[in-house]
Amino acid sequence: MRFFEDIEIGAQREFGSFTFTADDIKRFATQFDPQRFHLDEEAGRKSLFGGLAASGWHVAAVCMKLLVADGKRLTAEAVARGEKVAVWGPSPGFRELHWIKPVLAGDTVSYSNRVETKRISEKRHEWGIVQARNTGTNQRGEVVYSFLATAFVPRRNVGS
Amino acid sequence: MRFFEDIEIGAQREFGSFTFTADDIKRFATQFDPQRFHLDEEAGRKSLFGGLAASGWHVAAVCMKLLVADGKRLTAEAVARGEKVAVWGPSPGFRELHWIKPVLAGDTVSYSNRVETKRISEKRHEWGIVQARNTGTNQRGEVVYSFLATAFVPRRNVGS
Repeated sequence: MRFFEDIEIGAQREFGSFTFTADDIKRFATQFDPQRFHLDEEAGRKSLFGGLAASGWHVAAVCMKLLVADGKRLTAEAVARGEKVAVWGPSPGFRELHWIKPVLAGDTVSYSNRVETKRISEKRHEWGIVQARNTGTNQRGEVVYSFLATAFVPRRNVGS
Repeated sequence: MRFFEDIEIGAQREFGSFTFTADDIKRFATQFDPQRFHLDEEAGRKSLFGGLAASGWHVAAVCMKLLVADGKRLTAEAVARGEKVAVWGPSPGFRELHWIKPVLAGDTVSYSNRVETKRISEKRHEWGIVQARNTGTNQRGEVVYSFLATAFVPRRNVGS
């Protein structure tokens, strides 16, 4: 993971893709979002979704899973190169989360992000605050999911 | 579930509470957010969270789970009273999601919501669009989680 100083506005990163099977969709929905259009093909077809649709929270959780896995991969590579690695802080939240189109059983969503803003934290000078737009795009090139994430990112030469 | 016409601005509803055990926190994190402060007590204590902390997506997914369960309970009661029940549509997304304070192992979060705005859909006249602020409050009365949800809610006398 990078330090605040090394992050560039506009930098883009593909961080993984995931195919939502009917089983995956039903398993998540049973645990966290047991609405009929997430549990049953026929109910999905009759809904506004037009098919068995993944819970929006499932689409979001898979995004997080792939982000974390990609972060770990990048960290391991940086460590292997002998670089100093930044340990990012937690996220205080995000803005403008949109489920733009349904994710139906069999759809593959590819996730990417783009750095939009960066600034130094006013309260904690050893941290920067970075905003990145995360998006999910299906196999037809349609953006299905988007949110603006905020993260605390450590500065390179302050407080460590 | 209510029809658009029956929803009042300012209406509040408590819809359930959940105690996040260390096991729950680690199980969700292993699946969807395997960062060290969500998986290990010692790493949590050393982080900005100050303890083993639930993934923000876990706090959000539990909120959804309780919302759905409460909706099913209300629907069953309405059906038992012989009332006509509205079938809500999917949510297009939400705004201003904030993880305000950490949810640590052993914390109990009580969730509630409050209707903030309602309007008729311009594209689909048989639907209304309702915005509600959902919040999670811990056992010390501190708000830990908040987001502004949007839902499609059917109108009573249009298109059905």
